[in-house]
Amino acid sequence: MASPTRPPIALTMGDPCGIGPEIVARFFRSRASSGCLVVGDPQVMRRAAALTGGMLPVAELESAEAARDVPPDCLPVLPVQGLAEDLLAAPLGRVDARAGAAGARCIERAVELTLAGAAAAMVTAPIHKEAFAAAGIAFPGHTEMLQALAARGGALPPVRMMLANDELRTVLVTIHVSLRAAIDALTRDSVLETIRIADAAVRRFGIARPRIAVAGLNPHAGEGGLFGDEEIRIITPAIDAARRSGIDAAGPFAPDTVFMRARHAAGHPGEFDVVVAMTHDHGLIPVKYLGVDEGVNVTLGLPFVRTSPDHGTAFDIAGTGTASEASLAAAVRMARRLVDGAG
Amino acid sequence: MASPTRPPIALTMGDPCGIGPEIVARFFRSRASSGCLVVGDPQVMRRAAALTGGMLPVAELESAEAARDVPPDCLPVLPVQGLAEDLLAAPLGRVDARAGAAGARCIERAVELTLAGAAAAMVTAPIHKEAFAAAGIAFPGHTEMLQALAARGGALPPVRMMLANDELRTVLVTIHVSLRAAIDALTRDSVLETIRIADAAVRRFGIARPRIAVAGLNPHAGEGGLFGDEEIRIITPAIDAARRSGIDAAGPFAPDTVFMRARHAAGHPGEFDVVVAMTHDHGLIPVKYLGVDEGVNVTLGLPFVRTSPDHGTAFDIAGTGTASEASLAAAVRMARRLVDGAG
Repeated sequence: MASPTRPPIALTMGDPCGIGPEIVARFFRSRASSGCLVVGDPQVMRRAAALTGGMLPVAELESAEAARDVPPDCLPVLPVQGLAEDLLAAPLGRVDARAGAAGARCIERAVELTLAGAAAAMVTAPIHKEAFAAAGIAFPGHTEMLQALAARGGALPPVRMMLANDELRTVLVTIHVSLRAAIDALTRDSVLETIRIADAAVRRFGIARPRIAVAGLNPHAGEGGLFGDEEIRIITPAIDAARRSGIDAAGPFAPDTVFMRARHAAGHPGEFDVVVAMTHDHGLIPVKYLGVDEGVNVTLGLPFVRTSPDHGTAFDIAGTGTASEASLAAAVRMARRLVDGAG
Repeated sequence: MASPTRPPIALTMGDPCGIGPEIVARFFRSRASSGCLVVGDPQVMRRAAALTGGMLPVAELESAEAARDVPPDCLPVLPVQGLAEDLLAAPLGRVDARAGAAGARCIERAVELTLAGAAAAMVTAPIHKEAFAAAGIAFPGHTEMLQALAARGGALPPVRMMLANDELRTVLVTIHVSLRAAIDALTRDSVLETIRIADAAVRRFGIARPRIAVAGLNPHAGEGGLFGDEEIRIITPAIDAARRSGIDAAGPFAPDTVFMRARHAAGHPGEFDVVVAMTHDHGLIPVKYLGVDEGVNVTLGLPFVRTSPDHGTAFDIAGTGTASEASLAAAVRMARRLVDGAG
């Protein structure tokens, strides 16, 4: 539930040609949207409201603060300046430079609001990396863009991507690079930093001393050096250093079974509170395996709370009004929990 | 059910110091063991029978054929020659060269029986790679050893590892090598061969035209070349070649969502019949995520049927009599199904 005194949570509309605006509109048809606002384009959001059926008037805001004066059953949109005037001409379900630029501008604006304290947290709807590239935006994803914006021209803060659902939390050492480059990027320090960030993050979920499993990189975690030596050279020393600083980290464990061991389900208490994974797909495959509806992406290490659904723009169904807002709703719940510090 | 005229299915006892002998003994307490025999050491199997509780006399066989004359509620063991005489002195739950050598000899004998037609198929209990190494056996796992034995000194047949449970089948392009070496080993031909082997294997499950999903190697399947080019240089050309030969292969798909899409569960019909994965852990993480009890490993491309449970020797619980035989039983069911060609 929204606190009356807390600033609103800012939701970006995402790429206008993807399902972002639709799932945001759907979300604002539920009571769960209380205390939230949309950072985006009023025209795009009006179209999204129409695509998802039933009345949902757009209330254009002059400031984030004005969100609290919006009547129920309306869609509060804080317009972003500088978007293409013909944004509605960008075809749904296609890569479009205008749409890519608009998605990026909404992120910039939401970061400004959050850094200024006018928003309590930000939740981002999906953008499309090729649309970013078409618009000349060099970031491969939200995480890297948010890292750069949070740096405000200074040193980049160490950020990490966490994926979480009701069963499993994973934090990734490497993300949007080729698998070969991911292996090259592994260092004792990058693994140790990830363990530290994971530990701090899980404490915010109300767990006093998180049990951290560190997955290996290679099959069978290297089988004692037979299948690669990153576990010996890099991962084990990082775990040892983390333990010396009082963190309850263990491993490296074989990647193929550690996620199963960490899984929390009925009749299956997980052995760990979070798994540190070396690569994007080692960490994401298990979180997504049971379905993406409840998966949430959290960027750790930023000076503000940022979450997002763990799915993409789904161009194949954009404009049909059928996309589910469940993962977005889970992302908003997670953002509230992290802002309020609830366990 | 066993056919009265079909040769028996040969189960190896696995590493004597692991849970192999125990799960084999447990399995022979059920009716499902009809038409099966154990290739192993009678003393080790007597100990395993005792560890798992209740009467289960060992019947020492003179030949595989004699298995059909063994009374019910007995454990038919075909003794393997040349094992260490003090095999019982090898401590349970430890790496031991004698145990490693014994595990390997049982595999050799089971292959002889299967190649000679005296056994209809082989199902292997877990061996330990470090025990293999301690015994001077150069193979990193069953798959590679079976490939060499099946070659009988000639060219190595192209074999691939399939993991399957009730929800998902995956076939792996690379297995027991470092992740870096796995990337180096990917070629258009190795991917194409894997697609062909997967197609032939799934047809044996009674699916006339298998729908094959090919996973990418890199995050987001390379995101159009932004995160690695193996999809463009290697995987897509292999898929194209497979399609030209009439195989229903599609992809490359993002590794993090393809397994979820292929998953067959109540209310969730999978989009594909099998997923070809580039690496050991991309393929095994999702199969194991829900628990290893029902997972089965099938070696494809051999001149005989070979399956195994998808877990290891579990040294931590060896000798306690608590290990579950469920995955071994699933492996025997799978072997029967593949031998009988049932759909």
